[in-house]
Amino acid sequence: MDASMPHDPAPSRRADAERNRDRILAAARAAFAAGDGDVSMAQIARRAGVGQATLYRNFAGRRELLEALYMSEIEAVCAAAAEMSHGEGAGAALEAWLRRFYSYFTDKLPIATELLANSDADDPMFSSGYAQVVAAGRPLLAAALESGDVRSDLTLEQILDMVVAVAKIPGTPDYRAPILQTTLRALLRSTDS
Amino acid sequence: MDASMPHDPAPSRRADAERNRDRILAAARAAFAAGDGDVSMAQIARRAGVGQATLYRNFAGRRELLEALYMSEIEAVCAAAAEMSHGEGAGAALEAWLRRFYSYFTDKLPIATELLANSDADDPMFSSGYAQVVAAGRPLLAAALESGDVRSDLTLEQILDMVVAVAKIPGTPDYRAPILQTTLRALLRSTDS
Repeated sequence: MDASMPHDPAPSRRADAERNRDRILAAARAAFAAGDGDVSMAQIARRAGVGQATLYRNFAGRRELLEALYMSEIEAVCAAAAEMSHGEGAGAALEAWLRRFYSYFTDKLPIATELLANSDADDPMFSSGYAQVVAAGRPLLAAALESGDVRSDLTLEQILDMVVAVAKIPGTPDYRAPILQTTLRALLRSTDS
Repeated sequence: MDASMPHDPAPSRRADAERNRDRILAAARAAFAAGDGDVSMAQIARRAGVGQATLYRNFAGRRELLEALYMSEIEAVCAAAAEMSHGEGAGAALEAWLRRFYSYFTDKLPIATELLANSDADDPMFSSGYAQVVAAGRPLLAAALESGDVRSDLTLEQILDMVVAVAKIPGTPDYRAPILQTTLRALLRSTDS
């Protein structure tokens, strides 16, 4: 009970619960991005500043937490596609979104690896996540094709696979950056120099 | 003893032995390229048309055979680089060699996977093989840079990693081919269209 909330405490409690959930997800995301994958539930609770009881009330276990993280990343990439489409040009919008997808993939790699260790590669969650990303990117590619900013010899699936392949190259982000640049340049006519 | 060989049988025996060895390597290469990796020594002997005694006289075991295969592939890629350099243009020569490297990598993948299962990723054989490939490709890239056929923003190591990344993309060869095409186009100025 919170005495400072005079009317209807329920929405505020829901807001609190949502804040906790978001805080846990943010902490877990940061822990996995920084760490070597070997992140414990206790560490995540500490990082989020919540008790373990709160952590487990939100996520029954490590796997549930990883799944929620994965889904939230997918949603963020899809949301980015919708925002990009109001950009400065269809080719630039596609490129910006592919870079967003690339960094999502780079950040997500430890999460997906962990998740794969805890579930099945054939889990429909993965194919459904991928299908959502493809559906979100489709209008961006269509617009870039229509404006002539982009070459038509690759499908969106091939483009995404190409970006993922670069993201998986071992080495530092600085080592990979010019490889991504080269790859995207080939795709987009407008950035040819 | 071979009565049809009147003088000095030693060179001929050596030639026979070499022929057997080459035949075994060719059979093993074909078996691994075609198969699902699960190739037995007995199958390789059958395919090569030699007895198992001959097989084991040449290669003490599966691992020795895989190593020999790996090294022979590396040598072939390096030899190809030397031949390419007399080509029709520095950029075209580099591209042709990168395509050769790509197909080597695609064919070699099951062998390397098998070999990794039988040895250590830190085995100096791998780094030495890679160093040989880089050394062989270096003059091709230098010539292409000098002629202005190629952009200077990637090192040879980055270029090779990019090609390997495309080779590792799951799917059919037809699915990957345009991705490789796009990637190489970005590298080479001359093939821009």
